[in-house]
Amino acid sequence: MKKPKVIVVMGSDSDLPVMEEAAKVLKDFKVPCQVRILSAHRTPKEAKDLAENAESRGVKVVIAGAGGAAHLAGVLASQTTLPVIGVPMETKSLKGLDSLLSTVQMPSGIPVATVAIGKAGAKNAALLAVQILGLQDKALSSKLKSHRKKQANAVKLKDKKCRLKFSK
Amino acid sequence: MKKPKVIVVMGSDSDLPVMEEAAKVLKDFKVPCQVRILSAHRTPKEAKDLAENAESRGVKVVIAGAGGAAHLAGVLASQTTLPVIGVPMETKSLKGLDSLLSTVQMPSGIPVATVAIGKAGAKNAALLAVQILGLQDKALSSKLKSHRKKQANAVKLKDKKCRLKFSK
Amino acid sequence: MKKPKVIVVMGSDSDLPVMEEAAKVLKDFKVPCQVRILSAHRTPKEAKDLAENAESRGVKVVIAGAGGAAHLAGVLASQTTLPVIGVPMETKSLKGLDSLLSTVQMPSGIPVATVAIGKAGAKNAALLAVQILGLQDKALSSKLKSHRKKQANAVKLKDKKCRLKFSK
Amino acid sequence: MKKPKVIVVMGSDSDLPVMEEAAKVLKDFKVPCQVRILSAHRTPKEAKDLAENAESRGVKVVIAGAGGAAHLAGVLASQTTLPVIGVPMETKSLKGLDSLLSTVQMPSGIPVATVAIGKAGAKNAALLAVQILGLQDKALSSKLKSHRKKQANAVKLKDKKCRLKFSK
Amino acid sequence: MKKPKVIVVMGSDSDLPVMEEAAKVLKDFKVPCQVRILSAHRTPKEAKDLAENAESRGVKVVIAGAGGAAHLAGVLASQTTLPVIGVPMETKSLKGLDSLLSTVQMPSGIPVATVAIGKAGAKNAALLAVQILGLQDKALSSKLKSHRKKQANAVKLKDKKCRLKFSK
Amino acid sequence: MKKPKVIVVMGSDSDLPVMEEAAKVLKDFKVPCQVRILSAHRTPKEAKDLAENAESRGVKVVIAGAGGAAHLAGVLASQTTLPVIGVPMETKSLKGLDSLLSTVQMPSGIPVATVAIGKAGAKNAALLAVQILGLQDKALSSKLKSHRKKQANAVKLKDKKCRLKFSK
Amino acid sequence: MKKPKVIVVMGSDSDLPVMEEAAKVLKDFKVPCQVRILSAHRTPKEAKDLAENAESRGVKVVIAGAGGAAHLAGVLASQTTLPVIGVPMETKSLKGLDSLLSTVQMPSGIPVATVAIGKAGAKNAALLAVQILGLQDKALSSKLKSHRKKQANAVKLKDKKCRLKFSK
Amino acid sequence: MKKPKVIVVMGSDSDLPVMEEAAKVLKDFKVPCQVRILSAHRTPKEAKDLAENAESRGVKVVIAGAGGAAHLAGVLASQTTLPVIGVPMETKSLKGLDSLLSTVQMPSGIPVATVAIGKAGAKNAALLAVQILGLQDKALSSKLKSHRKKQANAVKLKDKKCRLKFSK
Repeated sequence: MKKPKVIVVMGSDSDLPVMEEAAKVLKDFKVPCQVRILSAHRTPKEAKDLAENAESRGVKVVIAGAGGAAHLAGVLASQTTLPVIGVPMETKSLKGLDSLLSTVQMPSGIPVATVAIGKAGAKNAALLAVQILGLQDKALSSKLKSHRKKQANAVKLKDKKCRLKFSK
Repeated sequence: MKKPKVIVVMGSDSDLPVMEEAAKVLKDFKVPCQVRILSAHRTPKEAKDLAENAESRGVKVVIAGAGGAAHLAGVLASQTTLPVIGVPMETKSLKGLDSLLSTVQMPSGIPVATVAIGKAGAKNAALLAVQILGLQDKALSSKLKSHRKKQANAVKLKDKKCRLKFSK
Repeated sequence: MKKPKVIVVMGSDSDLPVMEEAAKVLKDFKVPCQVRILSAHRTPKEAKDLAENAESRGVKVVIAGAGGAAHLAGVLASQTTLPVIGVPMETKSLKGLDSLLSTVQMPSGIPVATVAIGKAGAKNAALLAVQILGLQDKALSSKLKSHRKKQANAVKLKDKKCRLKFSK
Repeated sequence: MKKPKVIVVMGSDSDLPVMEEAAKVLKDFKVPCQVRILSAHRTPKEAKDLAENAESRGVKVVIAGAGGAAHLAGVLASQTTLPVIGVPMETKSLKGLDSLLSTVQMPSGIPVATVAIGKAGAKNAALLAVQILGLQDKALSSKLKSHRKKQANAVKLKDKKCRLKFSK
Repeated sequence: MKKPKVIVVMGSDSDLPVMEEAAKVLKDFKVPCQVRILSAHRTPKEAKDLAENAESRGVKVVIAGAGGAAHLAGVLASQTTLPVIGVPMETKSLKGLDSLLSTVQMPSGIPVATVAIGKAGAKNAALLAVQILGLQDKALSSKLKSHRKKQANAVKLKDKKCRLKFSK
Repeated sequence: MKKPKVIVVMGSDSDLPVMEEAAKVLKDFKVPCQVRILSAHRTPKEAKDLAENAESRGVKVVIAGAGGAAHLAGVLASQTTLPVIGVPMETKSLKGLDSLLSTVQMPSGIPVATVAIGKAGAKNAALLAVQILGLQDKALSSKLKSHRKKQANAVKLKDKKCRLKFSK
Repeated sequence: MKKPKVIVVMGSDSDLPVMEEAAKVLKDFKVPCQVRILSAHRTPKEAKDLAENAESRGVKVVIAGAGGAAHLAGVLASQTTLPVIGVPMETKSLKGLDSLLSTVQMPSGIPVATVAIGKAGAKNAALLAVQILGLQDKALSSKLKSHRKKQANAVKLKDKKCRLKFSK
Repeated sequence: MKKPKVIVVMGSDSDLPVMEEAAKVLKDFKVPCQVRILSAHRTPKEAKDLAENAESRGVKVVIAGAGGAAHLAGVLASQTTLPVIGVPMETKSLKGLDSLLSTVQMPSGIPVATVAIGKAGAKNAALLAVQILGLQDKALSSKLKSHRKKQANAVKLKDKKCRLKFSK
């Protein structure tokens, strides 16, 4: 297996159905990634080790998904200067508002690049990682541009069908 | 100076005007305490050391105040089995809702005893620490009971004045 | 039955599926506890009696779960100097935001140690009680430390499986 | 002084500038009232006594203002079958959302008649008390009707001036 | 049929499953009531007529349930000096927060006695009406007191069972 | 097919079950409309073209539905001086609060006429378009008035049934 | 004075500093308007008369600003088929969230075209009215287009200065 | 002047006091940047041009700050595959919650890397840009690491003073 360029971490295995959306996108773009389950609170040592060693292992971007008092992305960001992308998980009671605020409202000095709550966020975290990697990888950047085009074409096709359906 | 039984930590010196309310209450109850400024994000190593060594230094309770994506209490709680009390700071934009949710919505396994946003919370954090210490210290528990009585008497006095004022 | 060290109270029997998580954790740690249904609003006298007599009965910590305008923890806290832990119940309409704010925003003088909304909160309330009891009970404190280790190991095992699954 | 028909209670003397709006309205309607400072949390016994004895003292309506985890109205309501009107205080951090939810979201069985946050709420609490008393007091009910007319006329006068000003 | 003392109005027939809880409570207390569907927005004339004529028809209290931009209670309150109780409906998207704020945040001059969102609120609206009617009806007031006792006894019975279950 | 007077646009085909409520209302009023799927983010060029050409194609009103960071209505409004009506979609996590704020809180200079979240909003968007078109089309304006009457009559019929049901 | 084409109504004279922004914009566009103070709750009859007679007086659009439980726009909208634009006022405690939800969350059948909270909303309400009037008034529509251009030019000028300032 | 690697854009010159924090950080790190005022709504063409041409001009990262219905970052992100960082502005009424949700809740396909509301967010946006640029610039990455150390040392110094002050 190739050395991972992106690490996708989540705080609990219950976050997997959401976070594997990120892994899928990275796979589609053939960006080698590692998927980890590490808790800022239950395995702080492992979280620290991951963050501290990521850069020397050749990792470029860390994606971290967590819910509730979602400290994972912030804790990792505090221990590496690699860009860290935070994905707020939807939660049962507060629907992810807690996760979002715990992830995005970082104090000055330690940024977390926060994306949307849930699956859309997980996919976008991966795309953002690809955009960052694309800055130094022309081929990847080209793939991104065709991905955007395909995406636009998919919308246009739906638009066509929709116009047709309602013009009758 | 006596060995501290309680440590009052905050994430930034801008939290001091709020958190010193906790220190004052502890002083009133003659509970030796140490006041620290340590950031979960900017000095993660120091935060970790504090939490890991607290118990062996004779500390019984940790009080942690932080704002925004307030990870400090949770990060300390993940590295000690001493009770950790979290005080959410009021914030400029979201008025402390972010701090509150980041402090209280901890995942199962690592509790943070959260109190109210701001100064009332800081005072109550200290009183909660005194209540916990009072479980094994009869004298302290008695002081608490007289404090409660004084507090009630202060309300009753205000009530008297108020009744008088409005009965005219 | 042994004299309870912890009382788990809830405002309604509909809270039982959540609050029995607290009872289970206490049982696992072999901490004798009593489980009660008492409403701050519908049985105020019984609530008052419980709080006033708890200390003399040897109780050390009170855990109170309630929803909506969740006054139970606060009302108990106002009538005892034992530490009171509040568990906000998830509610149908406002999803527990009402319960959380009614439990945590206590005025200075009467703290309630508030934990997360719902089941995670109920479990953590029990663990917090164990942490408090552990301050004067070495054996209990040791159990807590192994519990933390088991918890960490469970995460590490899941991490292993996850890494494996995605490395294929 | 005449026996009070309405009691205006508040949880703290800092609530007085808001709650005296209620007293003023009652005075304008010549409804005898008593103004009290009593805390659900700091003087629970006095709060209980007030609620339990109100009816036998001839009181008809209780108005209770409190902030944060605002339990006062609910605690009084649980100990009397007189109608209890709750006024949520504006709070520094959460702007009264906490007070509102803690006052209005009462469990079935114990209603609190909740009005708006702050001064508008305090005035309306008094007017609501007058409306309730007016059900058995024709003179009072007539006064209410003229008050409404005056209020409407004041708006109409402002409307006139406004139209004039902008028609130039 | 007896002349109604209470009118229970709702803005839409979809509110009926919630609002009939109010009608049931009133029936249990043998308070004659009328149940109406009238929209502040879709049938403003009928809403106005209802409010304007209620007093002369012998009605004492109006209960109004509505959702979303819930204007019904406020619109009725603006056209009668009878006490108007507002029940905020739970809504699909904002879960009743919209209904609550639209009902409770009335401007000074026109109070609406607001109760909790949804079914608990509907029941409490009826109980509040009974409390108001009970001020001039000793028999009704006695029924209320026994209802409270039954309610307390029901909680005590559940408490007994609960203690038993967990003491094993 | 007649030239459309109203365009109903949505950001994604998942919004169709909601937005076709708008199309249905327009059809009922025989207002020719076109239904489009265009994303402010995924097909910005197409969105721009639609907005820029709408006026010259004879379109009078644009209705745009989008969810989350709902930029569609605002983006269209920035590129035409036709009135643009925004329909916030209900979202999975934040229940449409995000869509609402992203649609309504436009900066001064570029208004979006925002309606309620979800289906009620979609229907009302169409009715609002009809109200606007009715300003220069007497026949349409008459239809609107009869629609209002039918709507009122439907409520009155339900009211009749309800009164009957509860009078037994 | 010319017959008004737009009426700007507000619920209280305290809303005037905000709502006169709407009047100013209309004056700039030379659209004759009338400015009124009318309360849905304190002068319901006058509000009804205004709405019912607006169309026959030649009015084309109604702009209504109100705060808190902001029913004014909805109440007017229920009594006319002219387009009604609602401006939510910022409020002291809940900062306009109450006004926004009370204005925008209208039930299906009676739309209110809601704009942003406060001054930006008041300005945009007037611009939206101009956009609607512009549909049948080429001259007005042209003015709008130049206004947009001026607005864009003002931004471009600021952009120029800003680039310059930071390029040094 | 050197060709900019980062563009800092804002929607209005009133955002400048916040956004120049980003420019200052970039200057400290000697990263050439351009500061622009461009509105997604008032100058959509200029916004589009900026985004479309950024990559070919050698820009690597775009930072966009906007408030209210904050579409700027999303609109730019939809027209470039460069990473776009969004800074939500604090707003007068909703305190930046509107800006935050409008910036972060992007649909899948077009990510915006969102940071905290206000000044802390603006600083962190710049640091995040530096972290991204540091992936291909060893010198910059080293500077970042010393910046982190300085930041930690500043906290440690404050901690020292604080401990001293309270140990007396």
